Amino acid sequence: MKTVEILDRSGMVSAMKDQLAIDPMKTAVVGIDMHRGHLDPSIATMPAAPEDCDRVISHAEDVLNFARSKNIPIIHVILIHRDIPGFGSEGKKSPFWVAVQEYLSEEDRLSPGRKSTTTTHNLEGSPGTEIIPNLLAPTDYVINNKKRLDCFYGTDLDILLRTLGTETLILMGINTNTCVMNTAFSAFNRDFQVIVISDCVASMYGEDLHRLGLENVKRCLGYVLTAKEFKAKLSSG
Amino acid sequence: MKTVEILDRSGMVSAMKDQLAIDPMKTAVVGIDMHRGHLDPSIATMPAAPEDCDRVISHAEDVLNFARSKNIPIIHVILIHRDIPGFGSEGKKSPFWVAVQEYLSEEDRLSPGRKSTTTTHNLEGSPGTEIIPNLLAPTDYVINNKKRLDCFYGTDLDILLRTLGTETLILMGINTNTCVMNTAFSAFNRDFQVIVISDCVASMYGEDLHRLGLENVKRCLGYVLTAKEFKAKLSSG
Amino acid sequence: MKTVEILDRSGMVSAMKDQLAIDPMKTAVVGIDMHRGHLDPSIATMPAAPEDCDRVISHAEDVLNFARSKNIPIIHVILIHRDIPGFGSEGKKSPFWVAVQEYLSEEDRLSPGRKSTTTTHNLEGSPGTEIIPNLLAPTDYVINNKKRLDCFYGTDLDILLRTLGTETLILMGINTNTCVMNTAFSAFNRDFQVIVISDCVASMYGEDLHRLGLENVKRCLGYVLTAKEFKAKLSSG
Amino acid sequence: MKTVEILDRSGMVSAMKDQLAIDPMKTAVVGIDMHRGHLDPSIATMPAAPEDCDRVISHAEDVLNFARSKNIPIIHVILIHRDIPGFGSEGKKSPFWVAVQEYLSEEDRLSPGRKSTTTTHNLEGSPGTEIIPNLLAPTDYVINNKKRLDCFYGTDLDILLRTLGTETLILMGINTNTCVMNTAFSAFNRDFQVIVISDCVASMYGEDLHRLGLENVKRCLGYVLTAKEFKAKLSSG
Repeated sequence: MKTVEILDRSGMVSAMKDQLAIDPMKTAVVGIDMHRGHLDPSIATMPAAPEDCDRVISHAEDVLNFARSKNIPIIHVILIHRDIPGFGSEGKKSPFWVAVQEYLSEEDRLSPGRKSTTTTHNLEGSPGTEIIPNLLAPTDYVINNKKRLDCFYGTDLDILLRTLGTETLILMGINTNTCVMNTAFSAFNRDFQVIVISDCVASMYGEDLHRLGLENVKRCLGYVLTAKEFKAKLSSG
Repeated sequence: MKTVEILDRSGMVSAMKDQLAIDPMKTAVVGIDMHRGHLDPSIATMPAAPEDCDRVISHAEDVLNFARSKNIPIIHVILIHRDIPGFGSEGKKSPFWVAVQEYLSEEDRLSPGRKSTTTTHNLEGSPGTEIIPNLLAPTDYVINNKKRLDCFYGTDLDILLRTLGTETLILMGINTNTCVMNTAFSAFNRDFQVIVISDCVASMYGEDLHRLGLENVKRCLGYVLTAKEFKAKLSSG
Repeated sequence: MKTVEILDRSGMVSAMKDQLAIDPMKTAVVGIDMHRGHLDPSIATMPAAPEDCDRVISHAEDVLNFARSKNIPIIHVILIHRDIPGFGSEGKKSPFWVAVQEYLSEEDRLSPGRKSTTTTHNLEGSPGTEIIPNLLAPTDYVINNKKRLDCFYGTDLDILLRTLGTETLILMGINTNTCVMNTAFSAFNRDFQVIVISDCVASMYGEDLHRLGLENVKRCLGYVLTAKEFKAKLSSG
Repeated sequence: MKTVEILDRSGMVSAMKDQLAIDPMKTAVVGIDMHRGHLDPSIATMPAAPEDCDRVISHAEDVLNFARSKNIPIIHVILIHRDIPGFGSEGKKSPFWVAVQEYLSEEDRLSPGRKSTTTTHNLEGSPGTEIIPNLLAPTDYVINNKKRLDCFYGTDLDILLRTLGTETLILMGINTNTCVMNTAFSAFNRDFQVIVISDCVASMYGEDLHRLGLENVKRCLGYVLTAKEFKAKLSSG
């Protein structure tokens, strides 16, 4: 089995984390694709591992409730694809997703060992597009026109964040190494302070890419905190 | 030492690679930050490892010459930061880069074990902003106003690619897990077919994150080919 | 009274129009803010003139039905502003709109002679956000997160148009000289062929700016056709 | 001759202008396409009228010197088109510009009565791409990869403005009704306070569209000040 030896950057990471301060007045949480299409194994078309679904949902519920108690705005960003007559899902515009669908069997696509589809994932009106009910409150904002991996691309997320006066983004959701990481990159590029909550992210692509995604954030882009660390930072801030 | 066991996805990856076809008429190469600021150890302000500099430059020179012989356009995208009076480098707008500079010693920042700086990296007019001369030909395009990690963000790369009729993007340069990966995400989001040439990318952040970057591309976004595989695909295409 | 003498460019305009061909397979209609907030005088918060409401609605209904009969996709793009707790409408982020609200009386703001408001216009859930029912069919696409003047800014319009294979954009709606013109600029910048249907646009700002908006499109950006001319072009194409 | 009667909005406009305050610490000037390709009749490929060239250059020189004396940053944004082998100018990607070139004689294109070309305008390396020397100082910023009408589209203007802490944009240059107006729209959409200096803008398309542009800005988007009014506002601010 191939392994990657993780470079020990604990000195750098802890020095950075010690200095991190979070001003709740300038903070927002972005929940990324925390819908049934990833997180409800009974109907998901791109399912995370069942144990990851449980872990992410329970920790996210806790962190979101805590954030709401501090009046930190929550923004859910959700991928929904239209079904275009004569073309199919908007996802079929992606050549990689089309090739995945065509050349791989349904248990061997993006989420190995679990059936998945790129070309009918989260079609408009399908149950997968529903945000996990425990994670959604009436005061949350919902942006439901995400079309690709990046929460900023083709959405009004940047406009909303500037209106809210956000400087620090708390990221959670699915998948650590794609939508979360891509959104972390875009947030970094727009000069937000980026924090990923490790207990509230997971990857349907594999535990390895989840772990490597977290390494990438904390050594190149921003911060990775556990749910507990995040709550402690906010309480002391 | 912590290790990550890489999930064996060789079946998926080889099935996808077998099907890959590259039309040279609809292909462009994007060389990412292949400048002296990363690749010339004598003056680099964010240096890659010396052995990686040699490896990347020699393979990139080979691949770029091959691509030019097939009339595939080459686009170099380079980060250059203005020095703003009373503010400093444009890079100081990034809160993470400012914290890295302030809280870490110069040998323990983004490129561990080698001195680096985020706040005077590739300032306009400094030698680091020069593209490695062996990699630049008069017919290449140069986009030199990249400001953050993503080659598409704040540049005319997308406009140029559409003018060229590009559908497949060949990516090379520095760093595998940041600028290359962020650009791979943005290219995926815009529905380009994405190919990273493994011999022509490296990461100043560590070998582990270099390998992560390649795993992430080939299992989530596109294709990873060696220089030899790329040339074979083009010759047979 | 001040007047502007319109330069006679009829030679240029008719030469260009004669050459114009429209391929229905590569065409889409974008209906811009054809909601009750502009077009229903009984509740509009930024009302067009009543006679313009009637004119635009009747011609738009005709043109949209014709387009649907040719299988041309219709995309409605609608401004809706969230009401942010402690801040107010997302529209209050605009310094000009805030100044308009503060320094002008309610009958002397953007739509002269008719009461209007910039700071509670088309709030989420308000009746103004409803598309004029006669103009909406179940097969139409709706993008309802437009936040400013440009239909492309912060929306997935560009993604949808590329998925549809659109090369020619038919624009209609409110206001000729702001949202329609701004969208015409953005479409021009993205290399779409732009056609504005003169019978289906109007300006709440004044007849003068409506007329000058049409002049600007046909002499600098694209084409202005009457509803009748558009239908003739499509039938002969 | 057709005329448009301008609606009398002098009450609105003067009320707004009275309230306008300009903080020089949060202001930047954007000079739009003030290059020889528009403003030097001896070589311009899209020439403004000679008397407009003189007017704009003399007033712009005065206003820019004044702004520099107040330490207000100046940003020149310039269109330059690459000459793509086998394709031609990047401007040939625009279907409207291609049609203009093909169907109209060289004295009857975008700048009526003066020879112009859309397909070889401001090619890289041509004299038209030079900023008018009197308008350029060593401390000015230059963004020279504008490709279409909007100074924000495909450039790093937004990144630079945020780095500079800009909230108020002073616009000048060519053409009032296209690049200046499109940039005014984009600046409005990004919540900048927009001010156009009437003495420093002109339109090669015709005096009527120049006047339209100014009316449109002051009634819909922002403010129009003479050079004298601008200097008075800044001195009293």
